Amino acid sequence: MKLPGQEEFEVSSACENVPTGELENGPGSCPSPDGTSDTDRGDRGVPTDSLLFIQLNELLGWPQALEWRETGRWVLFEEKLEVGAGRWSVPHVPTLALPSLQKLRSLLAEGLVLLDCPAQSFLELVEQVTRVESLSPELRGQLQALLLQRPQHLIQPTGTRPCQGSAHPREASHNEEAPLKEQRQNPLRQKLPPGAEAGAVLAGELGFLVRPLGAFVRLRDPVVLGPLIEVPLPSRFFCLLLGPSTLGRGYHEMGRAMAVLLSDRQFQWSVRRASSLHDLLAALDAFLEEVTVLPPGRWDPTARIAPPKCLPSQHKRLLSQLREVKGPSAQHGALAEDRHGHWPHAPSPELQRTGRLFGGLVQDVRRKALWYTSDFLDALHPQCFSAVLYIYLATITNAITFGGLLGEATNGAQGVLESFLGTAVAGAAFCLMAGQPLTILSSTGPVLVFERLLFSFSRDYSLDYLPFRLWVGIWVATFCLALVATEASVLVRYFTRFTEEGFCALISLIFIYDAVGKMLSLTSAYPIQSPGSPAYGCFCQYPDLGGNESQWKKTEPKDRDDISSMDLGLVNASLLPPPECARRGGHPRGPGCHIVPDIAFFSVLLFLTSFLIATALKHVKTSRFFPSVVRKVLGDFSSVLAMLLGCGLDSFLGLATPKLMVPSEFKALECFQPVVHAHVLLPPTTQGLGTGPTLPGRGWLVSPFGANPWWLSVAAALPALLLSILIFMDQQITAVILNRAEYKLRKGAGFHLDLFCVAVLLLLTSVLGLPWYVSATVISLAHMDSLRRESTACVLGEPRSFLGIREQRLTGLVVFILTGASIFLAPVLKFIPMPVLYGIFLYMGVAAISSIQFTKRVQLLLMPAKHQPDLLLLRHVPLSRVHLFTAIQLACLGLLWIIKSTPAAIIFPLMLLGLVGVRKALEWVFSPQELLWLDELMPEKERNIPEKGLEPEYSLSGDTEDVSRRMGPLRRRGQEWGGPS
Amino acid sequence: MKLPGQEEFEVSSACENVPTGELENGPGSCPSPDGTSDTDRGDRGVPTDSLLFIQLNELLGWPQALEWRETGRWVLFEEKLEVGAGRWSVPHVPTLALPSLQKLRSLLAEGLVLLDCPAQSFLELVEQVTRVESLSPELRGQLQALLLQRPQHLIQPTGTRPCQGSAHPREASHNEEAPLKEQRQNPLRQKLPPGAEAGAVLAGELGFLVRPLGAFVRLRDPVVLGPLIEVPLPSRFFCLLLGPSTLGRGYHEMGRAMAVLLSDRQFQWSVRRASSLHDLLAALDAFLEEVTVLPPGRWDPTARIAPPKCLPSQHKRLLSQLREVKGPSAQHGALAEDRHGHWPHAPSPELQRTGRLFGGLVQDVRRKALWYTSDFLDALHPQCFSAVLYIYLATITNAITFGGLLGEATNGAQGVLESFLGTAVAGAAFCLMAGQPLTILSSTGPVLVFERLLFSFSRDYSLDYLPFRLWVGIWVATFCLALVATEASVLVRYFTRFTEEGFCALISLIFIYDAVGKMLSLTSAYPIQSPGSPAYGCFCQYPDLGGNESQWKKTEPKDRDDISSMDLGLVNASLLPPPECARRGGHPRGPGCHIVPDIAFFSVLLFLTSFLIATALKHVKTSRFFPSVVRKVLGDFSSVLAMLLGCGLDSFLGLATPKLMVPSEFKALECFQPVVHAHVLLPPTTQGLGTGPTLPGRGWLVSPFGANPWWLSVAAALPALLLSILIFMDQQITAVILNRAEYKLRKGAGFHLDLFCVAVLLLLTSVLGLPWYVSATVISLAHMDSLRRESTACVLGEPRSFLGIREQRLTGLVVFILTGASIFLAPVLKFIPMPVLYGIFLYMGVAAISSIQFTKRVQLLLMPAKHQPDLLLLRHVPLSRVHLFTAIQLACLGLLWIIKSTPAAIIFPLMLLGLVGVRKALEWVFSPQELLWLDELMPEKERNIPEKGLEPEYSLSGDTEDVSRRMGPLRRRGQEWGGPS
Repeated sequence: MKLPGQEEFEVSSACENVPTGELENGPGSCPSPDGTSDTDRGDRGVPTDSLLFIQLNELLGWPQALEWRETGRWVLFEEKLEVGAGRWSVPHVPTLALPSLQKLRSLLAEGLVLLDCPAQSFLELVEQVTRVESLSPELRGQLQALLLQRPQHLIQPTGTRPCQGSAHPREASHNEEAPLKEQRQNPLRQKLPPGAEAGAVLAGELGFLVRPLGAFVRLRDPVVLGPLIEVPLPSRFFCLLLGPSTLGRGYHEMGRAMAVLLSDRQFQWSVRRASSLHDLLAALDAFLEEVTVLPPGRWDPTARIAPPKCLPSQHKRLLSQLREVKGPSAQHGALAEDRHGHWPHAPSPELQRTGRLFGGLVQDVRRKALWYTSDFLDALHPQCFSAVLYIYLATITNAITFGGLLGEATNGAQGVLESFLGTAVAGAAFCLMAGQPLTILSSTGPVLVFERLLFSFSRDYSLDYLPFRLWVGIWVATFCLALVATEASVLVRYFTRFTEEGFCALISLIFIYDAVGKMLSLTSAYPIQSPGSPAYGCFCQYPDLGGNESQWKKTEPKDRDDISSMDLGLVNASLLPPPECARRGGHPRGPGCHIVPDIAFFSVLLFLTSFLIATALKHVKTSRFFPSVVRKVLGDFSSVLAMLLGCGLDSFLGLATPKLMVPSEFKALECFQPVVHAHVLLPPTTQGLGTGPTLPGRGWLVSPFGANPWWLSVAAALPALLLSILIFMDQQITAVILNRAEYKLRKGAGFHLDLFCVAVLLLLTSVLGLPWYVSATVISLAHMDSLRRESTACVLGEPRSFLGIREQRLTGLVVFILTGASIFLAPVLKFIPMPVLYGIFLYMGVAAISSIQFTKRVQLLLMPAKHQPDLLLLRHVPLSRVHLFTAIQLACLGLLWIIKSTPAAIIFPLMLLGLVGVRKALEWVFSPQELLWLDELMPEKERNIPEKGLEPEYSLSGDTEDVSRRMGPLRRRGQEWGGPS
Repeated sequence: MKLPGQEEFEVSSACENVPTGELENGPGSCPSPDGTSDTDRGDRGVPTDSLLFIQLNELLGWPQALEWRETGRWVLFEEKLEVGAGRWSVPHVPTLALPSLQKLRSLLAEGLVLLDCPAQSFLELVEQVTRVESLSPELRGQLQALLLQRPQHLIQPTGTRPCQGSAHPREASHNEEAPLKEQRQNPLRQKLPPGAEAGAVLAGELGFLVRPLGAFVRLRDPVVLGPLIEVPLPSRFFCLLLGPSTLGRGYHEMGRAMAVLLSDRQFQWSVRRASSLHDLLAALDAFLEEVTVLPPGRWDPTARIAPPKCLPSQHKRLLSQLREVKGPSAQHGALAEDRHGHWPHAPSPELQRTGRLFGGLVQDVRRKALWYTSDFLDALHPQCFSAVLYIYLATITNAITFGGLLGEATNGAQGVLESFLGTAVAGAAFCLMAGQPLTILSSTGPVLVFERLLFSFSRDYSLDYLPFRLWVGIWVATFCLALVATEASVLVRYFTRFTEEGFCALISLIFIYDAVGKMLSLTSAYPIQSPGSPAYGCFCQYPDLGGNESQWKKTEPKDRDDISSMDLGLVNASLLPPPECARRGGHPRGPGCHIVPDIAFFSVLLFLTSFLIATALKHVKTSRFFPSVVRKVLGDFSSVLAMLLGCGLDSFLGLATPKLMVPSEFKALECFQPVVHAHVLLPPTTQGLGTGPTLPGRGWLVSPFGANPWWLSVAAALPALLLSILIFMDQQITAVILNRAEYKLRKGAGFHLDLFCVAVLLLLTSVLGLPWYVSATVISLAHMDSLRRESTACVLGEPRSFLGIREQRLTGLVVFILTGASIFLAPVLKFIPMPVLYGIFLYMGVAAISSIQFTKRVQLLLMPAKHQPDLLLLRHVPLSRVHLFTAIQLACLGLLWIIKSTPAAIIFPLMLLGLVGVRKALEWVFSPQELLWLDELMPEKERNIPEKGLEPEYSLSGDTEDVSRRMGPLRRRGQEWGGPS
C-alpha cells in the first residue's frame, strides 16, 4: 500500500540511518545507502519533521496512592526505568506483544482523537481531553486533578559531552508554564537536537473509570506541558490511555505500544499529516503490515535486543513496500540499488580519463587551486590541535621504527635521523602541494622491503650505494611522471581486493619473518651459556709484570672482591670485566669474555612484552573499561605506550641490551658523513656482516657517480621500473581509499597531482640521500578521523552523525615541522632497545595481516563448517569454491615468497603486478557472481552483472547487509604500514 | 484464553528447554525451572507428542522449468537453504512478517482442511488434496503430476557423531514407497530422535491456477511420503499453498509461516488434537496472541537472530496466558515460581536434621548401602574409560603441582611422592566408602595455605613438625566427628555467596601472590649480572701446586680452550665451571662463581609461557577452530599441555633451571627417611632458609611425640579447631554443589557420611605423614561431566539433553589406583622446572578469581555506567548499592589479607567464618531484595520474602532470566583448586 506523500519520505527519513561511525572501530559504521544522509536534514530546503522524544508516564499505586511516574522513554530505541536499580536501562530494540497493538487500535478507534488541537497550555489540553461524554462532571474534576499532578522523573546524570547546539528551551510564552529547575538542568536536554519535540503517553489503571478512556491529541503548535516531560521540550503529541483494572498491566503495554508507534519515523510522518481518525488507524495498520514477528516458543518476549549496528534504511522499507505492490518487477531496480548503491564502482570524476597529455594533472591543479586559501582558513578549529598531537606522535613512532629498521637494513646508509629529516621535508612539501593534503607520507613497508633488497644487491656487486640509489630515484621519478602524463592512475581500478591482499599479505609476512628473525639473530649474538660448556670465566691479563698490577691495586683497592686477584696469588691478571680491563690496558682472556649474560632472554622478554602490550592496548579501545577518553588515548597511542614501557623496563634493569644507534650530536648534516652506524652493538665475532657505509664522505648532496661506472646510471632504470610499479601500486591504492565517498570530502581528490608530488619528492630525497616516501593508508585515515566534523545532534542510543572532514593543509604541515624539530630528540632515542622496536614491528605485521579478508578465509580452512561465522560470503558461495579461491591465493603467496627468497628477490614488484594477471585468469575459473562475493569485479565485467542477474529470488531475499563487506574497501588497508598503532 | 487440555501441556512441553549444557562452559546452560525436564519425556507414562521435523518445499522456476526444491527446514529453529553457497544456513530464530501469517490464515480458512486423513501413500494423499471443486479435471491431473515430481534436497554431510538410538526408518509397509537411497543415507536422520514425525509444507507460485489453493492435512497414521521429505520419516502433517503469481514471493513467506507455526510446540499440540477448521484457526489465533513484535524502523526484518541461550519455558508461556485471563491475581503465584522455582532454597532431604546423634550419618549409610552393588555394575560402560583417562591426568597434574608446592612450603616435610601416595590412598578409600563416590579428593588450596602456615608456625617455635601435625590431625578428626554427630552439615546454608566468594578470593589472591613471589625470589637466587658490576669471572684453584695440574692437563687436554689455562701461564688454576672444578678437587674462586647466567630471565620466560599457554588453550575450547574433539582435548588438558610445553622448551635449551626435586628412587617408604628435599637448587648463599626436615629419621608411621613436649598434643587442639572450620567449609560447600538437583543424581547424597570419611582419612594421612585431603570442586565436577548420560535425541540446533550421571564408584577407584602406580613416574618428574609449576599455579589462581561474581562487580567499579553490561543485578539494585556491597567485600578481603600477613596468620579460617557474621550484619545495611540480587538469602529471611513482595509490577515486568544468576551457585565454585582447568 502506498501512503500519501510517500515521495517526500525518502528525504525526511534519511536521518534514520546510523551514520558513519568511527573509521577505525570495526564494523560499527554504515554509510547511508543512497548518499543522502543526516547532514542533508534541512540543508536542501525541504522542510523535515522534528525529532520526537517520547515519554511514557504511568499511573501507579491504584487505589491507595496514585502517582504518575515516567517508566519509559524513546527516541530511536527504548529505555526502560529500572525501578529497583533507579537507573535507565541500556537502550534496546522495543518489543511488543501483538495483542497490545490490537487493543490500542480499538481503544483509539473508540476514543477521542483531536488533530491540530489549539491548546496553549497543559491545563487547556487537560480540559479538552477530559471533555468526554462518558465522564460525569465529578469524575472529570477528579481526572483533571490527577492529570495535572506532577509526575516523577528519574533524572540521571550523564558523563557524555553535550552536543553542540543542543536543544534549548524556548522562552516560555505568556500562558505556558515555566519549566521546572530539574527539567532545565536535565543533562538529557543536551543530547537532543535543536527543534526536537516531545510526545507524551499517559497510561494506567484507574479503578473509578467504568470503561477505558483513550485520547490521542496532535497539538497545532507544540507546547511545553509544564512538568509532564522530563526535558522542557514543546510537546506535539499527547496520548491518554486509562481504564478500569480489568486489563491489569494491559495499559502499560498499550502505552508502550503507542510510544513505539510514535517513535517510528514512518508512523510519525503519517500521523503528523493525518486529517482524521481514519488516517491515524491507516498509519497504525501500515505499521502492523511491516512488523517483524518472532514465534513465542523460540523467543522469550522479555529478552532485550541490543540496538542493531545498522538500522534498516527507510529507503529499503519503501522498496519492500513497493515490491509488495508491484511484485517482482520492482526487484531489479532494488537489486541495482543494493549492489551498486552500497558498492560504488562508478569511477569518481577525478579518475576519468581526459585523453590529453597531463590532462588529469592540469585538472587536478585547477580544482585544488580554488580551495587553496580555504585550506588554511579551515584549520582554525580547536580540534586541529589534538589532531596535530596525535598524528605527530604517530609520525615519530613511525619514523623511529622505520628509520631504525632502515638503518639496519642498509647498514647505516639510512637511519633514524635521515628518517626524521626526510619525513619532515617530504611530508611538509606534500602537504603544501598535494591534491589530497590530508595524506601523511611515510617510508612504508613495501618501499622499505625494496630498499633492503636494493642495498643487498648493490653490496653483492660492490656498488657505491647512494649514487646508485640516486639514479634509481631519477628513473623512478621519470617513470612516475610518464604515468602522470598518460593519466595511468585511472588503471587503479584493475587492482582488486585480490591484488591488494596479495600485496599486503606478502609484505606483512616479510615483516613478521624479519622481526622474529632479527630477534633470533640477537640470541646468537648474545649466546646463552649452557651448563655443559667447559669454557667458563674470563681473566684480565696485563702485558707487563708487576708494575701495572701494583698500580692498579693501589688506585682501586675497594672495587675488588678480596678473593678476586689478591688471594689467588696471581701476578699479572685480575677479574675485571672486559671493557674495564681494556680501559686499564689489559687484555681480556678466556672463553667467557665475549659472553654478555642474560641479554638474550631479556631481549626475548622485551620483544614479547612490547608486542603483547601494544596488542592489548589496541584492544582496550573496544573494551568496556574506563571512560571513553581514556580508552581512546590508550588505544590510539598503543605503540607509543608499548615502546615507552619497553624502554622503562629496560632502563629499570639497566642491562646492556642492544640499543638504537643514533649519532649523539646533530651538526647540520655532518651526521651523514661518518655514517658508521653500527646499529646493533654486536660482539666482535658477529660484527662485520656489512662492510660499513658505501660512501665514506658524504655531504648535503649525493654525488651522481661516486665509484660506480657511468653505465650504471642507465642500468638503474631496471630496478627503477620495479620500484615505480611498487610506488604506483602503493600510492594509488591509498589515494583511492582516502578519497572514497564515505568521507564526504568537499574539495575533491587529486590522484594525478598526488602521484606527481610523490615523483618530485622521490627525486628530491634521492638527491639528498634521504628515505623514499609514499602515502601511508592507516596513518592518513587516522589523520582524517581526528578531523571529523560531527553532527550537532546526538539522540539517545544514536551515535553522532558524520558531516565530513576538516579538509585543510595546516595540521599536516605543523606535524611535519614538529617532526623536523624532533631531530633534536636524538639523545633520547638512543635509550630505545632494539628488541622493543622489533616487537612493535611484529605488532604492525600481525595487525596488518589480521585485518585482511584473506586471513579470515584462511581461518575458515581450520573451522568445521558448522562453527563457521555466518558470513555473507558463505551464504552465497559454496564452501569448496571459497576454499579453492583461498588456496589459489595461498599458492600465489607461496610463489612470491619463493621468489623473494631467491637472488631474484628484487623483481618482486613485478610479481605483485603479476597478481593482476592471475586475478584476470581467475575469471575462467570462477563465475562473476562468485568473484563479486570473493573479490570485486574488474571494470569490464562490472557492466555485465545487472543484465546477467544474480538469481534475484535469493540474493534479494533480504540478507542482512554485511557491514564488513560494504566497508571492505575502506578498511581493507587496515594493513598499511606505520599506522598510529 | 485457555486452550483445551492445557493441563497436560506442562509435561509434554518440558522438553523444549535447552537442557543443562556443559558444566564448564559459561552461561550456556539453564536447568529447567520446574524440575521436570526432557528426561521425563515418556518416563512418566504420560503419552507425549512426537517431535516434528518440518520441511518447506518450494515450487520454483515458473513458468519455464518447474521444480520443487527444499528451501527451509525447522525443528527448533529455522535453517534456510543458501542457494548460492549450496549449504544450510546456521540455525536461527525464524522471523515472519505479520501479513504472511494473516494471509495464511485466510487461505486456510477458505481452503481444504482434512483432519485424520486416512491416506496410506503419497499418491492417495495427492488425490485427496487435489479433489477440489475449483479445479478442472485437466488441471487436477497436471497438479497431481507436479506434486508427485521428485523434489530437490540438499543433503549435507555432517561431522557430528550420531545420537544413540536415532531415528531409523520404519519398515516400508505394503503400499508405502520405499525410501530413496539418498534419503536413507542422510546423516540428518541420526540427529532426530526415534519416533520423530515429519511435516511437509509445499508452497509456490503456479501460474495456471486461477485462485489460490490452500490445503492442510493431518494424516490419521503417519506415512512416509516417498521422496518428499529429505529424511525417510513418516509424515503427520501436509500443507499445500499454491496460487497464481499475483502474490509473488508471498507463497514462500506463507509456507515459512506455516512451517514456523508447526514447529511451535503449543500450536502443534493444538493441531494434533483439533477436530475442525475452527480449532485450527483458534490455534493460529492463540499463536498470534503470543508473538513478539519488532517495530519495522528499528529492526531489519531480514537480520538473522542467533538461537537464544535459553528457550522460554512453556510453563512461563502458560503462566503469561493465565495472567492475561486472571489478571494481576495470578502474578503472585508466578512470582513465587519465578523466584523460587529457579532458585531452589528448599533444603534437600539429605540436609534435613533428624535430631538424633549421628542420625544423619546412619541415614546416609542406609541410603547408600542400597546402591552399593549397582555402584560397581553401573560402571560397565565404555564412557567410563575416557573418564578415567581424563580424570587421571587431571589428578596427577594436581598431585605434581600441589605436591611440588607443598614440598616447598613445608621444606620437604611433604613432597610429590607423598602427594601421589596420599592422593592414591585417600582418594581410593573415599571412592569406596563415601556418600558421594563421584567426588575426587585433592589437597586443595585452602588446606595447602593452612599447612604452610602451620609449618612456619612450628618452625618459629622449633617444634618437631610431623608429630605436631599428627596431633592436629587427631584433633581435627575428633572435631569433624563431633560435627557429624551433631548433624552440623545442615548449617551449610548459612554459607552464602558472600562467604564463598570471600573464601575463594582470599585463597586465589594468596596463590597469585605466592606464584609471583616465588618467581621473583628465583631472580634473587639467580641474580642478573648488570654491566656495571665490577665482579666478574671465576677461577678454579687447585690446592696443591704442580702435581694435580699436570695430571689434569694430561687426562683431558682437548676439553680446554687453548687460552684457558695453558697460555695464561697459570700454575694452579683453570677456567673449569664450578661443578666440574669441585669434582676434580679444585675450589671455584671469584665473584662470578655463584652466578648462573641466563637462568633468571629464562625462568621468567618459562613462567609466563606456561601461564599464557594454559590460559590460551583453555580458551580454545570455546573458539571456532578445529573439530570439537580437538577443542575439547586442548581445553581439558590445557594445564597438562602447558606443563609439557614448558618442560620441552626447558629441555630443548638444556639450561640449569631449578627443577622439581624428587628422590630418584622409590624404595618402599625410605624416601621419607632422608627427607632432605632441597626443592630448589639454590646457590649456597640463599640456601638454608629452612632448617631441613623436622624429623631426621622417619618410618611408615609418624611418631606421636618426637621431640615435642607432651602438652603440645593438647595445645594442638587450637590450630585443629581452625583447620576443622576450614575443612568443614571447604568440604561441605563442595558437597552441596556436587549434589545439586541440576545433576539429576538418582542415588542421593551423603553429606554426613562424606564428612565422616574425610575425618577418618585425615586421621589416617596424619598418622602416615601424608598430605591432608578434602573434596575438590572443579575436578569433581569435571568427573561428573565426563560421566554425563545424554539423551538419544539431538535435534538440529538443540544441544543434547542431559539425562543424568553414571553414578558409580569404579572410575574414581581406577583413577586413584593409577595415581598410586604413578609413584614410579619419579624419574620423569625431575625434568619439570619449578617456574613451569609456578606458571600453572598462577593460572589456577587467576582462573579461580576470574570466575566469581565478586570479580565482575569489582570490574564494574572501573566501567562507566553506560558501558556496563546489562546484568540482571544492575537492573534491580542501584549502582551505588552494588558498589557499596563490593566495597564492603573488598574491605573484608583487605582485612583478611592484613591478618594473613601478620604473625596471627594462622587464625585466618576463623576470620573466614567471621565472614558469615559480616554477612549477617549486612542485613541491617541492605534490604532483603538487594541481598537477594547481590548475594542470596540466609535461611530465616528466605521465608519472609514472598509475603513482603518484591514490587510485583516491576519485578514481573518480565526481565530476561539471567542465566548466570540462576547458575550462580553451581558455577560459583569454578574457583576450586586444582581443577582439570
